[in-house]
Amino acid sequence: MPTPFTPIVAGLPATIPFVGPEAIERRIGRGFALRLGANESLFGVSPKVEAAIGAEVARAGWYGDPEAFELRTKVGQSLGGIGVDRLVMGAGIDELLGVLVRLVTEPGDPVVTSKGAYPTFNYHVAGFGGRLVAVPYRDDKEDLDALADAVRREGAKLVYLSNPDNPMGSWHEGAAIEGFVQSLPETTLVVLDEAYAEFAPEGALPVLAFTDPRMVRLRTFSKAHGLAGLRIGYAMADPEVIRAIGKIRNHFGVNRFAQAAAMAALDDPAFTTGVVTEVGRGRADYAGLASECGMTPLPSATNFVTIDVGGPERAVALLQALEAEAVFIRMPGVAPLNRCIRVTVGPAADRARFAEIFRPLSRRV
Amino acid sequence: MPTPFTPIVAGLPATIPFVGPEAIERRIGRGFALRLGANESLFGVSPKVEAAIGAEVARAGWYGDPEAFELRTKVGQSLGGIGVDRLVMGAGIDELLGVLVRLVTEPGDPVVTSKGAYPTFNYHVAGFGGRLVAVPYRDDKEDLDALADAVRREGAKLVYLSNPDNPMGSWHEGAAIEGFVQSLPETTLVVLDEAYAEFAPEGALPVLAFTDPRMVRLRTFSKAHGLAGLRIGYAMADPEVIRAIGKIRNHFGVNRFAQAAAMAALDDPAFTTGVVTEVGRGRADYAGLASECGMTPLPSATNFVTIDVGGPERAVALLQALEAEAVFIRMPGVAPLNRCIRVTVGPAADRARFAEIFRPLSRRV
Repeated sequence: MPTPFTPIVAGLPATIPFVGPEAIERRIGRGFALRLGANESLFGVSPKVEAAIGAEVARAGWYGDPEAFELRTKVGQSLGGIGVDRLVMGAGIDELLGVLVRLVTEPGDPVVTSKGAYPTFNYHVAGFGGRLVAVPYRDDKEDLDALADAVRREGAKLVYLSNPDNPMGSWHEGAAIEGFVQSLPETTLVVLDEAYAEFAPEGALPVLAFTDPRMVRLRTFSKAHGLAGLRIGYAMADPEVIRAIGKIRNHFGVNRFAQAAAMAALDDPAFTTGVVTEVGRGRADYAGLASECGMTPLPSATNFVTIDVGGPERAVALLQALEAEAVFIRMPGVAPLNRCIRVTVGPAADRARFAEIFRPLSRRV
Repeated sequence: MPTPFTPIVAGLPATIPFVGPEAIERRIGRGFALRLGANESLFGVSPKVEAAIGAEVARAGWYGDPEAFELRTKVGQSLGGIGVDRLVMGAGIDELLGVLVRLVTEPGDPVVTSKGAYPTFNYHVAGFGGRLVAVPYRDDKEDLDALADAVRREGAKLVYLSNPDNPMGSWHEGAAIEGFVQSLPETTLVVLDEAYAEFAPEGALPVLAFTDPRMVRLRTFSKAHGLAGLRIGYAMADPEVIRAIGKIRNHFGVNRFAQAAAMAALDDPAFTTGVVTEVGRGRADYAGLASECGMTPLPSATNFVTIDVGGPERAVALLQALEAEAVFIRMPGVAPLNRCIRVTVGPAADRARFAEIFRPLSRRV
């Protein structure tokens, strides 16, 4: 049958970036007891967020401010004085990734990323007809030199980099990221995905005073603030990039509950600090558990720990065995990263429960 | 300065589909007392919705189901048995419009709509480099024959039609819409925007049993259900179209509060019926008020009433005078529709307050 779809759409495979845990639950016919696969926060939300959501019910019928002006003002202040002209909100980083790809990618254009990095970015590149150029990780880190080389070799206008990294949990020093950005051609945009920024150690992020027209920093309220379910993140970029995004983004896409909740989250930095502190403890717990089980925990600057279990077959087997115990985790999809599993850090009780299940299982799988 | 943006993006004007009421409030330095410009529901939400939102706070940290499977199942049931393979959710109709335009539009492709119809659709067409072909309204209705003629003449693969219509409030009989769809070329998609479906009189919508691979029906929880602030709507279409949307849409874009609230709203049809009934009373009130003021109310199948005030200058003047009284309304942007103002129907108290303000103002403006 003839279809009206563009050649790009007609040529796309029917793949999705991620199968959600709900789809797995439907397949296996039971709910997960532990949901540790999507790096969601298991620490709840600030009481201020809960109150803000409750208060917003009275205004549920109103569209949210398409400019998210109050929230951008507050985010800018929380970042020590970033102007609203350098900020734009989105329905999570995922939406912003799509907009950023669209901003610069014409069919056939090269786009650089790392082999095994965020699938949703790749999904958007394919969706706009871009040609993905993926360079290998080096020592389980994204390889800054190789990324920059690929950009120059291909003449790419877009390069993706997550720091701290997902799925490996690794990170570069902020100064190295700054040097990377400055090494790029004048008309290349780097999408710097900082979803895990709050969990990063001192010095692992470019300083906020560092600005460069080539750099788009993405942040989210989905991780440390516990608002993944509301869908809200933002881009920090040169005003010219922000204006360009404003020409094509879905202006009414960020819901008003998310805006109110994000403002309330910023009003309770102690809550977020508490989550980050406890995640630090949890990373140490997971590292201890992995070592105890004869596996190698990778250092992490995120809210998850990636564990080298020795090979992809064992990683898959562990994933399946955990699924049979109603535990949801994920693993990197691409070699050599796929010798690992990736486990989200939850509160102490969840970690203890995970350890109870994982310990015996690691002996037989 | 050289930029990495695509020629399409670089060539777009820095316009937005709508200036939000919040931006107007910031400009005039005060809040609106009556917000009657965006056809939002002023009737609150069902107590079941409020309870569902409260309950969802415990799961705020979890991403929503990217397939919205439970909700699609429930929506399908509420529509008398539409399969989930014919449904996809989006963050409001706005997001779905962008995806639909992207599905079929290559740079330079003609896209047909009516002159003065929904600006956000036009925004998306421009954003993907489409060439907008707009046919005039006839007798304040979208002109089905002219739309079909334009599709054939231009070889358009996409045509937009809202029924009931925004901004005029007018409607066609369902049978006429069905005939329109069937008259289109085999590979033309019609985006049938049914945002105001719940307010339409008997017979004004195509029957649910009418399916056609060319027809994509859009519905929303933003109007009768009062969930505009949460951002949730859906497309009903041929499974092949739904699959194509699934190749490019933002899979994690619909937040979990919206999904839970929409399900709760479907559990309380009496609430929605109550809103629709009261809106009917309100339309009659506005019609009476307009006539009393010597203006011509247009018949409406929506939650707003469009009032012919005699000409565009007076419409602008009334809009500004109302703004000075802290009342937010809108008016159609294009002649000859711009001889009208458009006022959202709220509860009796809001209508009375509007009448109090409008009556004296209509004598001096």
